[in-house]
Parts: sequence; C-alpha cells; structure tokens
Amino acid sequence: MIVAGDQQLLKQINRMALVRQLCGAPGMSRAGLSETVGLTKSTVSLLVRELMDEGWLTESALRATGALGRRATPLHLDGERLALLGADLGITGLRLVATNLLGVVLAERDEPYDDAADAAACVAQAARALTALAADAALAPRTLLGLGVGLHGAVDDTSGLLHVAPHLGWRNVDVAGLLRASLAGTALATLPLFIQNEAKVAALAELEFSGERGADPLIYVSIGYGVGAGIIVNGRLMTGLYGFAGEVGHTILQQGGPPCSCGRRGCADALIGLQALLDAVHGPRQPAPPEPLQQLFSAAERGDAATLAAVAAAGRHLGVLLNNLWVAFDPMSIALGGAAMRLGEHLVAPARQVLAEYAAATSLAAPAVRTPPFGANSIAIGGAAMARHYLMRPFDGHGVGSYAGT
Amino acid sequence: MIVAGDQQLLKQINRMALVRQLCGAPGMSRAGLSETVGLTKSTVSLLVRELMDEGWLTESALRATGALGRRATPLHLDGERLALLGADLGITGLRLVATNLLGVVLAERDEPYDDAADAAACVAQAARALTALAADAALAPRTLLGLGVGLHGAVDDTSGLLHVAPHLGWRNVDVAGLLRASLAGTALATLPLFIQNEAKVAALAELEFSGERGADPLIYVSIGYGVGAGIIVNGRLMTGLYGFAGEVGHTILQQGGPPCSCGRRGCADALIGLQALLDAVHGPRQPAPPEPLQQLFSAAERGDAATLAAVAAAGRHLGVLLNNLWVAFDPMSIALGGAAMRLGEHLVAPARQVLAEYAAATSLAAPAVRTPPFGANSIAIGGAAMARHYLMRPFDGHGVGSYAGT
Repeated sequence: MIVAGDQQLLKQINRMALVRQLCGAPGMSRAGLSETVGLTKSTVSLLVRELMDEGWLTESALRATGALGRRATPLHLDGERLALLGADLGITGLRLVATNLLGVVLAERDEPYDDAADAAACVAQAARALTALAADAALAPRTLLGLGVGLHGAVDDTSGLLHVAPHLGWRNVDVAGLLRASLAGTALATLPLFIQNEAKVAALAELEFSGERGADPLIYVSIGYGVGAGIIVNGRLMTGLYGFAGEVGHTILQQGGPPCSCGRRGCADALIGLQALLDAVHGPRQPAPPEPLQQLFSAAERGDAATLAAVAAAGRHLGVLLNNLWVAFDPMSIALGGAAMRLGEHLVAPARQVLAEYAAATSLAAPAVRTPPFGANSIAIGGAAMARHYLMRPFDGHGVGSYAGT
Repeated sequence: MIVAGDQQLLKQINRMALVRQLCGAPGMSRAGLSETVGLTKSTVSLLVRELMDEGWLTESALRATGALGRRATPLHLDGERLALLGADLGITGLRLVATNLLGVVLAERDEPYDDAADAAACVAQAARALTALAADAALAPRTLLGLGVGLHGAVDDTSGLLHVAPHLGWRNVDVAGLLRASLAGTALATLPLFIQNEAKVAALAELEFSGERGADPLIYVSIGYGVGAGIIVNGRLMTGLYGFAGEVGHTILQQGGPPCSCGRRGCADALIGLQALLDAVHGPRQPAPPEPLQQLFSAAERGDAATLAAVAAAGRHLGVLLNNLWVAFDPMSIALGGAAMRLGEHLVAPARQVLAEYAAATSLAAPAVRTPPFGANSIAIGGAAMARHYLMRPFDGHGVGSYAGT
C-alpha cells in the first residue's frame, strides 16, 4: 500500500517522488515540484534541503532574468557526490562499473574469472573486485548508494538466487548470500543489493540512463550464446510468476526447426543465438568460449561467405522475433544488445529488413530498433541503473535491497 | 503522482484502497484494514461509514465468540445496492449485462444489430438498449456506478475511439462521443464510461470476477474470426504505445505460411482464427457470418473428418502460440475465450497436447490453460469488470471514465 501510516516510509516516498520528477524534468524549481507532485511548498523546501545535504540534488546558478521578485532556482540531480555500483558476472569474467547518479561511468574494472566452473569462487572474486573498485580514487569523496548485479541466467530477484546459468554450468547458486558473506567486514557490507538477470538489468539501463526514460513498453533483446529479453511494462520490469518472463529465446519461430538446448525445436535461441551460429558454421556443439566466438567474429569481419550466410539467416529469424515482440507488446522502444552485436549490421540489417517488410505489408510503422549506447558495459551499467531504479521506488516490493545474507 | 495535495483525490484513493483490500480479503475488520492499509483506525472508521452509506460495503452479523471486549465486525463488498453495466458490441449484435459489485449478473439483454454496417446506428441502438436495461426492475433500487464497453477491434481507450473493427468494416468510429450523444438526456447521461478492445475487457473480467484476482501476468486469449489477447502485467492492463499491445494474432507462427488479412504470412490469425478455419474448410474467403460459422460448428459436432482435421491443425498452432506466450510472459494464468470455444476440445485438446510436449521437453511445468467461467457473456461482464477496475483505481491515468462527449 502506498498511502501508509509509516511516517518514515511516507517521507521517503515523497522525497523520491521529487527525485523521480527531476530525473524526467531536470531544472524544475521548488514551486514547480510543489505544483506537479502535489506537496506543499514548505514540505518541498524541507525535503529538497535534505536531498541537497545528502548529495541527491543540486541547484543551478540563478539565471539573471531581470524580472522582479525571487527567481525560481533550477534543481537537478547531483552528479558529483553519490555513486552507484554495477556488476556483470559474465560468461568468461567480471565487468564492474561505478557511475554517478546520472549513469556516467566514474571507474570501471574487468577481469577474467580465476575458475569459471566454481560459482562460489567467482562470486567471492566479484566481492574482492567490487571492494577494490569502491576504493578507487575517483570515488573517494562519494557516498555509495547501492549495488546491482546482473547474472547470465534465470534469477529469483526476491531472494537473489540464480536458478541456472546454462553457459556457465552454474545451478542454484545463492548469489545474494555468497556476496553478502564475502562483503562482510568491508565498506560494502551493508550496501543495498539488487540482483537480476542480465537482459532485465540491461533493460533498466535503457530506462534509467539512455534517454529512453518513460519509454513503455520498453524491450531490450539480449543476443549472446542464447537470446533473452528484459521488458518494462506499466513502469516496472516484467518478472512473471517465477521470474522467467522475457525468456523470448524459447518462442518457437520455426515449428520442427533445429533442436534447442531447452529440449524444444525451432526456438529463437536455436536460430539466432551465437551457439546456434557456431553450430551452423563449425558443426554441432563445439566446446565454446572464448576462441570459437573470436573466430566467428573474425570470419564475419573478413567476409567469409559461409559465415555471412549463416549470420544473415539468423538475422532474418531475428526480424521475425522482433515482429512478434512488436505485436505482442506494442513497444515504444526496442534495443538490441549482447555479444552478438559484434556482428553488427551483418546480423541487424536482415532483421530490420524483415521487420520493414512486415510493416510494409500491414501499412503500419514498425517500432524503431536501436543498439544501446553502453556497448560492452550495458549489463554492468544496468546494475547501477537497477540500484537507482529501486532506490527511487521505496514503495516497490521488488528487489528491496535487503537480502539478509548468510 | 499518488501522494497528492488534492484532498478529495487523496480521500478517494484511501477509500478505494479499503475497497480493493476487501476485494482480495473479504471479511476483514476495521482494525485489520487499519493495520494493512496503514491508515489510522479513526480514518478507517470514517471512510467505512461513508462507503457503507453509499452501498460499497456491508457488515456481516457479529460472530458470538464469547471473548471479552468489542468484537471485530467483518466487512464485505455489498452485492445488494450498487450496479455496474457492461456492453459487448459484437460482430452480429449487442450483448448487455448489469452486474452487482461482485460480478453477479442481475439482468441481461441481447439483440441483433438493425444494421451492422452502420456503426453510428449500432452505437445508438446500444444506447437505447442500455437505457432499457437500466430500467429493468431487477436494478430498480440500485445506484449505477459505471459502464464499460468492449469493441471487436483496435481501440484508443484514452479517447474512446475505435480505429478499426475488421469483421464489422467499421473504421475511425468515435464510440465515446456517439454513445455520450445518444445517452444525453437519459439516466445514463453522466455515468462514468470506459471503452476498450474485447479481449482486453475479457481479461479484466478474469482479473476482477473469476477468482483469478491477483493473477499476474494474466493472459486472456480471444479466438473469434481473428486472434487477440488481453494481458495484465504489473497489476494493470498492458495497452502499449498505441493501444495495440496484445495483438498476438499477428505473431508469425509459420514463416512463409498462409496469407493473413494483415498482409503478413503465417500469422496466428491465419492459422488459428475462425476465418482461417472457414477458408480451410470452404475455400478462400467466403462472405461470412452468421451461417458459415454455424455450419462449421455443426460439422465439427457431427464429426465431419475434414472439419475436425482442420480444427485439430489450428489447435496445434494454438499450442505453439500458448508456448510463445508462456515464455514471453511467465503467466500465472492463461484463459481461452471467444466464439471458437464452441469447438471445445476439438480445438483445445491439441493445443494442450502441444504445450504439454514442449513442457515435457524442457522439464518445466506448463501454465494451466483454462476456459473462462462467463461463456458468451465474457465481454459484457468484462465491461462491468472494467468499470469496477478503474473506479477502484482513481489514481490511474487509463480510462478515466470522463470522455467529454460531443
């Protein structure tokens, strides 16, 4: 319930309502906030003062307008005093960022796993790397607000449990508990923590930091070894009953098509994902990373005909998937990300072409398909975005940032 | 913004928070509401008194527990004093219901259109029929709260405009304006009015009145001449950027498959919908309703082999569509409705079979697929459900029930 008798929660809801308003409309004055948010001017002034003291907000210099009377001072999110941490526990290693409140990267770090097969060791390695990142001189004067972690598999975000990460071979890993245990005694021990699947995290990066704020529905399609999506509907991440929503890699695009790792046939995963491309180019299921992928990207770059034909075929199937997402969600924005974006227009141009053909057939305008601005940092930045997203929504049941630890 | 300075709106939000709480947990006491909703006991008592005076709530008789002190009086939605109206402006005629606050039908009415080709005449006919229904003796002592209308096409619910109803041949019909004009001077002139696509309306019937309360995501797949869906995500109807979300009839299930009325090939519509079945059985595009459909249903009932084969093939494609909705949404509940349900298990059993095969292949449990409890009244009852849904959410921007009229 929103309208709560808990005065502390109510105050935090009101504070964050002001912050969210300034995210979408930077430069508003206290009077403007009062009118828009519906709080009295004195309450707004009080809360803004607190938020400025804590580093959330800052004032611009007054503009000399020459008008009489007290001029309205523009307020903004403060990019200078707070920081967010984001971590991508990837397939072959870690990628970490610290950003300011606006998503600008202040420091970053990436390293291969010491032992990718040992999930607990990888989480402990992430904890060490995060602690080192937090000690980076670039962050020294800042207060850390929260940490968001993206995992390459199915996640229960309410408990921080990773069900399965197929390309890592990890199963039932209590990432929240392991991370809390590894961070005990460090400066990050009590930092609010949020854990979610990589595509969902990257969707939050789009929502919070890419200028796509307010885009709804917003779809981020992640194409790596497999295919997944993070989808924002009605202002929030769609998680589904068991947290599996957005697993669009297992929509059937070709009945009776090639076998998928999930057991079905003709899934998007088996027609579009990098594993499918490796299989198509090299023959059935090779032991994968990292060299086969490099070979695939290199072959595409040097124009190898068989590789380009396989990539173009995958791109056409991607166009079908995009059509199916279009009609099901009527999205305001579709972003494409993931490791397969290294294939660039070899993959994306055929997809756009197929989508454009469908659009022409129906006389409707297809949604724009974008590549996100964050490149290889999409998921790590998404972690920071997720922390900001949930911290700004203290009334939201999801990802309360308080996984109790072990 | 929720936390508003507008005291009337804030009061209405608080009142409806109590009503929503009692929808989900009937029998709560004032003290229980106070604790759950976070309002003081005195505020709850005041608001409950108002809601009882207005007919929203009622008290049960006190239970004699023998305990000392004042006993907690159970509160419920009142089924006796208020009413909701729902209208289904169908393909061949009107179907109207009046329900109580709990969705129990108090009165109903159906009639064929005088002239289905004339959209304005059909809306005027609906206005007359609604006025007659509202005068039904069964409603005499009740206060009407709102009217919800389901239309068989793409709707802009914010303006009440019907973009296109393909099987009626209606285009760009200002249903809200026409209805308001026709109702001017009647007892329904100022009744809050909500207008939406039929599958979306039927999804709201599931959410509000079927015992699926809180099911999220909830998907209602409507199979009539075409295929559409109403989808509830994050507690609200998913409408999409232009109101077209849920048009899953135009997901491609078979690349290069049969041509669809939309211009694409291999859409769910062209593989599953009744028009596709008519085409399959009778040859390409006959002039349709109502006799060809009756013939189709009769042929299936008497076990005509060619008809049953075509229906079973459609059912298998429906299973693929259900798989694709499953992985994209991870729904708590999928309901199947629409005129094609007349084909019963001839259509649904092959769909369940295909879905079960996918589930077995993945070792996951497929979502349950239900047929809704409301039969031919699903959309009309959905209209009543939509009115209750939005009236109970006064902070929601959608369907504010105040289409200004002409």
